[in-house]
Amino acid sequence: MKGLGTKGWVAVAGLGPGDEGMVTAEVREALAQATDVVGYIPYVARVAPRPGLTLHPSDNRVEMDRAALALRMAADGKRVVVVSSGDPGVFAMASAVFEAAEAFAGDLPEIRILPGITAMLAAAAHAGAPLGHDFCAINLSDNMKPWELVEKRLRLAGEADFAMAFYNPRSASRPHQFARALDVLREVCGPDRLITFARAVTTPDERIVTVTLGEATPEMADMRTVVIVGNSATRRVGSWVYTPRRAG
Amino acid sequence: MKGLGTKGWVAVAGLGPGDEGMVTAEVREALAQATDVVGYIPYVARVAPRPGLTLHPSDNRVEMDRAALALRMAADGKRVVVVSSGDPGVFAMASAVFEAAEAFAGDLPEIRILPGITAMLAAAAHAGAPLGHDFCAINLSDNMKPWELVEKRLRLAGEADFAMAFYNPRSASRPHQFARALDVLREVCGPDRLITFARAVTTPDERIVTVTLGEATPEMADMRTVVIVGNSATRRVGSWVYTPRRAG
Repeated sequence: MKGLGTKGWVAVAGLGPGDEGMVTAEVREALAQATDVVGYIPYVARVAPRPGLTLHPSDNRVEMDRAALALRMAADGKRVVVVSSGDPGVFAMASAVFEAAEAFAGDLPEIRILPGITAMLAAAAHAGAPLGHDFCAINLSDNMKPWELVEKRLRLAGEADFAMAFYNPRSASRPHQFARALDVLREVCGPDRLITFARAVTTPDERIVTVTLGEATPEMADMRTVVIVGNSATRRVGSWVYTPRRAG
Repeated sequence: MKGLGTKGWVAVAGLGPGDEGMVTAEVREALAQATDVVGYIPYVARVAPRPGLTLHPSDNRVEMDRAALALRMAADGKRVVVVSSGDPGVFAMASAVFEAAEAFAGDLPEIRILPGITAMLAAAAHAGAPLGHDFCAINLSDNMKPWELVEKRLRLAGEADFAMAFYNPRSASRPHQFARALDVLREVCGPDRLITFARAVTTPDERIVTVTLGEATPEMADMRTVVIVGNSATRRVGSWVYTPRRAG
């Protein structure tokens, strides 16, 4: 990988949303040079096995263990790629690696973050251009923050008239929160605001549906869905949805 | 390009921030199949000339003419790539193409949006992981909206404790607005909040500087700079800056 020496290193790389056509050349190059790949099971499964490459798939919710393992192996001279889907800096492994770096005992290895196509931008592209004006990205999971903070951010984002992209909108362990999020959005943005459900973007299972907030139901989202809410000017043209560049 | 027929089409493609290693395979493939490339002069200059490919570079601020030209040529059977730097859906050509599509007389050609690595995510990657928690993206130019709306969004984003990324922070034609933005941010976020100036990211001129809002001056930004302001938990580890995953 460009700029990285022969000593051990950690590259935290984004594999994009799923389609191999959306992987960058620099991520491919890092994977080609790696001795070890670390990551959540389905993401490591996207890396082709080859002689000299050890795969270390791990379960969800062990991000800190995974980050610490990557740093330790790199400090021992390995060339380690930590894989995330999408972009590693957006609700993914980059922050976890820096959290582990703060706690690391010994000299830190070289660290490089390799960006990828994050899910909301792939979803926006396949839906049209709903994020074409000022926007925000919110992780709707309450694993890492109180739900009250999510609601506060939804209200302020609506007041700011941001378009909004939501990661992790809904899971089996918290089925009611997304219904509550839709209620808050209807209250702040009104029932006619457009909302796009983009599921499994760029994979064979891709399904993109745009409705109004008045028509939206919680079941339209699952953990493979990115949800995009337009701003007050977002509209349809043909089967597309887009947000004009001009506002106010 | 996958899924596009032999009839004319328009692909609105993101070239990423500058480094050819950050261009996706699907964008390369679209350029390989194109008969015509349309875009702002410096972006078209990134496309290698070849026999059978006509380049149509145009000046800044003629986005609608450019979009209409692309649709007309595609309706006439050409395979047209509209190039943007970064991602076409983030303050770039995708929305302009849909605005032109609304006004288009006749049958619309096939349109495809091909995402790219947008400047804020490349900047975040090279700075560390400052957008590792909920964040917003704001275009600070007042070409497309009143300045009062920019200030309102800065205040609400600060109140929401979003990390923030700013595109087009400062230009020669409006030198005072970014100074005003920094004043608003200091008022809302306090003087100790971290702010990163990422100039010409991934090019040979790349320069990344992180200071506090109290230390920040307007001259630290120009039109080639993406500015990232952390949230209340954003901190440094070594030469990196990152936002922890956990909040509240």
